[in-house]
Amino acid sequence: MEGGKQVEVANKTSVRGLDLILRFLGFASTLVAAIVLGIDKQTKLVSVTVVSTLPPISVPVTAKWHYLSAFVYFVVANAIACAYAAISLLLVLANRGAKKGLALMIITLDLVMVALLFSGGGAALAVGLIGYEGNSHVQWNKVCNVFGKFCHQVAGAIVVSLVGSAVFLLLVLLAMLNLHKKHQ
Amino acid sequence: MEGGKQVEVANKTSVRGLDLILRFLGFASTLVAAIVLGIDKQTKLVSVTVVSTLPPISVPVTAKWHYLSAFVYFVVANAIACAYAAISLLLVLANRGAKKGLALMIITLDLVMVALLFSGGGAALAVGLIGYEGNSHVQWNKVCNVFGKFCHQVAGAIVVSLVGSAVFLLLVLLAMLNLHKKHQ
Repeated sequence: MEGGKQVEVANKTSVRGLDLILRFLGFASTLVAAIVLGIDKQTKLVSVTVVSTLPPISVPVTAKWHYLSAFVYFVVANAIACAYAAISLLLVLANRGAKKGLALMIITLDLVMVALLFSGGGAALAVGLIGYEGNSHVQWNKVCNVFGKFCHQVAGAIVVSLVGSAVFLLLVLLAMLNLHKKHQ
Repeated sequence: MEGGKQVEVANKTSVRGLDLILRFLGFASTLVAAIVLGIDKQTKLVSVTVVSTLPPISVPVTAKWHYLSAFVYFVVANAIACAYAAISLLLVLANRGAKKGLALMIITLDLVMVALLFSGGGAALAVGLIGYEGNSHVQWNKVCNVFGKFCHQVAGAIVVSLVGSAVFLLLVLLAMLNLHKKHQ
């Protein structure tokens, strides 16, 4: 009986530890993703021919992250998930005794973050792909051949954010496995 | 004691009923979303001026759903979710006694569908918005002024798919609430 209780306490501690590690990982990755895309900006000189008899003139053109609504949504989604991860991390740390209502609220919000981050990731990836490849059918030209650094930064942010999305998904899964095991 | 057991059985039945209803709703909405976008096609005559001294000629231009990779991903995601909803509906119906392992597998896959549907919805919405509004910064022109019917169908599919995404989110939430209640 004593042994069984010890195993249960050890199990609870390891689940809690894993939850804390995942939550911190979720915080860090969404923070990095939001910052990497949020500071993304590149200015390039593009030659424009105004009159065909004169030599082309160079015009500075700037690519900014907030020019595309999908990127704005991506940054906002990651910022919200980051803030939530920080708050939930503190709440879990402060409540060692784990109140039932609080635990349920945290799982629910973790689930909402999964939805938020995956939709943001999907949106940014879809628009990023058009920027990278272009689309001849709708005559949207690729822009990544000009703004290479800008696009690399977008790609980096998307990859890091996908890690964050997976982490939140694992958090929900961990909580479910834990509830399931307790129920058995 | 007898009364408590009756309440528990009644509660279990109502949870199971709600799960089945939600699962059917998830099946129906992802099916409709996949079909509505999967058959989306519109041909329009567009006037093109070849030589400025001659009158413009009309060229038939067709918009198809599979011209944009985000729409392809959207249709595939909804088709997968639809097939899974149908299979899981049958599994839940066949297993009245609810095996523990099966229940856990179903919750996990429900969660994966949440991620899949939200990323697909985000991708299609992001590309659809560019088609609807265009983006002057990257010189991607709007196409919905020409292909109005096509765009309406895209919008309809996205709305229906978002309902499906919300249904899968509710399924995960219901399962968690249920496990949580049992645990208390």
